Amino acid sequence: MGLIGPGRVGGTLLDQLRAAQPRLARHLGLLLELRGVAASRRMWLDCDDPELNGRHGGAQIWRPTDLDAFLAHLRGTEGGPVMLIDCSASEAVAARYADWLAEGVHVVTPNKLAASGPLERWQAIARASAQGGGRLRYEATVCAGLPVVQTLRDLIDTGDELYTVEGMCSGTLAWLFNHFDGTRPFSSLLREAHALGYTEPDPRADLSGLDVARKLVILAREAGWPLSLEDVQVESLVPEALAALAPEAFMQQLEALDAPMAARLAQARAAGGVLRHVAHLDREGRASVKLAVLPASHTFAHARGTDNVVQFTTRRYCDNPLTVQGPGAGPEVTAAGVFADLLRIAEALEPRP
Amino acid sequence: MGLIGPGRVGGTLLDQLRAAQPRLARHLGLLLELRGVAASRRMWLDCDDPELNGRHGGAQIWRPTDLDAFLAHLRGTEGGPVMLIDCSASEAVAARYADWLAEGVHVVTPNKLAASGPLERWQAIARASAQGGGRLRYEATVCAGLPVVQTLRDLIDTGDELYTVEGMCSGTLAWLFNHFDGTRPFSSLLREAHALGYTEPDPRADLSGLDVARKLVILAREAGWPLSLEDVQVESLVPEALAALAPEAFMQQLEALDAPMAARLAQARAAGGVLRHVAHLDREGRASVKLAVLPASHTFAHARGTDNVVQFTTRRYCDNPLTVQGPGAGPEVTAAGVFADLLRIAEALEPRP
Repeated sequence: MGLIGPGRVGGTLLDQLRAAQPRLARHLGLLLELRGVAASRRMWLDCDDPELNGRHGGAQIWRPTDLDAFLAHLRGTEGGPVMLIDCSASEAVAARYADWLAEGVHVVTPNKLAASGPLERWQAIARASAQGGGRLRYEATVCAGLPVVQTLRDLIDTGDELYTVEGMCSGTLAWLFNHFDGTRPFSSLLREAHALGYTEPDPRADLSGLDVARKLVILAREAGWPLSLEDVQVESLVPEALAALAPEAFMQQLEALDAPMAARLAQARAAGGVLRHVAHLDREGRASVKLAVLPASHTFAHARGTDNVVQFTTRRYCDNPLTVQGPGAGPEVTAAGVFADLLRIAEALEPRP
Repeated sequence: MGLIGPGRVGGTLLDQLRAAQPRLARHLGLLLELRGVAASRRMWLDCDDPELNGRHGGAQIWRPTDLDAFLAHLRGTEGGPVMLIDCSASEAVAARYADWLAEGVHVVTPNKLAASGPLERWQAIARASAQGGGRLRYEATVCAGLPVVQTLRDLIDTGDELYTVEGMCSGTLAWLFNHFDGTRPFSSLLREAHALGYTEPDPRADLSGLDVARKLVILAREAGWPLSLEDVQVESLVPEALAALAPEAFMQQLEALDAPMAARLAQARAAGGVLRHVAHLDREGRASVKLAVLPASHTFAHARGTDNVVQFTTRRYCDNPLTVQGPGAGPEVTAAGVFADLLRIAEALEPRP
């Protein structure tokens, strides 16, 4: 096993792996061996200081990063199964999945770039996995540790048919609109969310809706629909005048959001509804991410805090959808989503009758 | 693969398997071969009329049921992996899981009797699986096709710690209390639920709370807590005077429920809350199934129709729980839950690098 990208999620995953190791060995008979960690510039291999297994950081020896050498080291001479965990946010790493899978290397990632990237590349990745036997899992790309991707895959694999996906897939935007009741201007809530670490360092990354659109693309493809990012109608909440500003300048002009947002809230109330940031996908190929007015009785109107909600309406779940809800961001739950993927592959590699 | 119990769920599963077979072969390279079907008295083996593969019922040849001969036939002479799907509600079948697993046979079931049965037997089953290598999966024992058991298992396996489970795990009781608003007597709603097929043929099986208690036992054990059915405080909604009646007599005396239920509803309203049938489990070992008064803002107050809801509060999901919600009963979604389990085992049996 090798980890690429020991950042917040990757580092948390290493902590979780270390803590869970004894229990996994005892209960599941699983031994997960971390043979290397590669950051963007330098990497650690366990052959350099084997007694540190997994405890990177601090004293150990680092080499300049070279992913070919990294993989060769993971492979070793015994020819056992190899798993790469990509917790980077790197396009260059995603571009290599197809080759790795074709060579039988298993890949687990919370990185959305491959699964929501160019359709042709994604199809090549799927073919490489089918032909080479390397498995690819990416549960944590959608709502972190919540069981969303696997749930949809199970529905499809068992012959159900997806009709629609309705979601609130941004914890940040969910929090903002749960709290935006007119008592405080929108900019003040946004500043608070930023200070609490709920937003990206540049909140426009959240407000643009692009991250949510990527999640829709991933779910659509899981259902077998050839959706691309360009097919999603995304309403950005960033006023045009603020789109090109430097991050610091943007943070100083948040008040420009207040009037348009107050108007939207007034509209929603006049219609007797609430304002929520929602993602929608249906089998006619319509995909949208926007601020919508929902009836006050809607499930999304009752979600809490930064909760994500995803609802699948299918042939079998047609009267009421199958709903998954809960915190869908943050290093702990994202790393746990990656960890569960990794276990699913590891369990499948155990010898069984 | 052999199916024990071709009833409503088992029969639906056979239909789903047949419909999904081409897609599974094409996309996943999976070939699932149904070699036999055993009902309580007679069984069908594919060697008797091989051209009928899976299309039991009607013309084919039946033999008297003999589970040893059934298993021997599934094993055949090639020694490939064998999976038994137990869709019976049979105690005698559940009693054999340990032996089968010890022999490396995989078992998939929606039958709650093993996982919520005597603790010692359950522990023997877990040991047999660990030693013999046969896998046991039972997602559909709790809320049918909703991802509940696997979700909890992933939390625990990745090192999370379960604090509480809160659930509405009876679609029947959820429907009854969603609709019980005082405009109609409880007995009238119960008669309607019975006519709609939402209740068991004898509604006391739902009202007793025992089925929900079994689900709590299964989830507790999944978290590593040695709970037994006797440890669950179960409030039965069946008045003592009606408990011993024959089913027809019971159905004629449902009005005896009206006064006590109206009183409970009045109490709830006086407290400003709503009445819901809830299951509770916590790490202090407390487990209860009862009619509770909840604040009107509670998630359970907004559930729809016959929806089940399960909320896991854990170390990682401590502010807001991880919530799964949706229809949790009926042959289609129950069979789909069994089917997904079966795929998870089958995928793990494929050769991989």
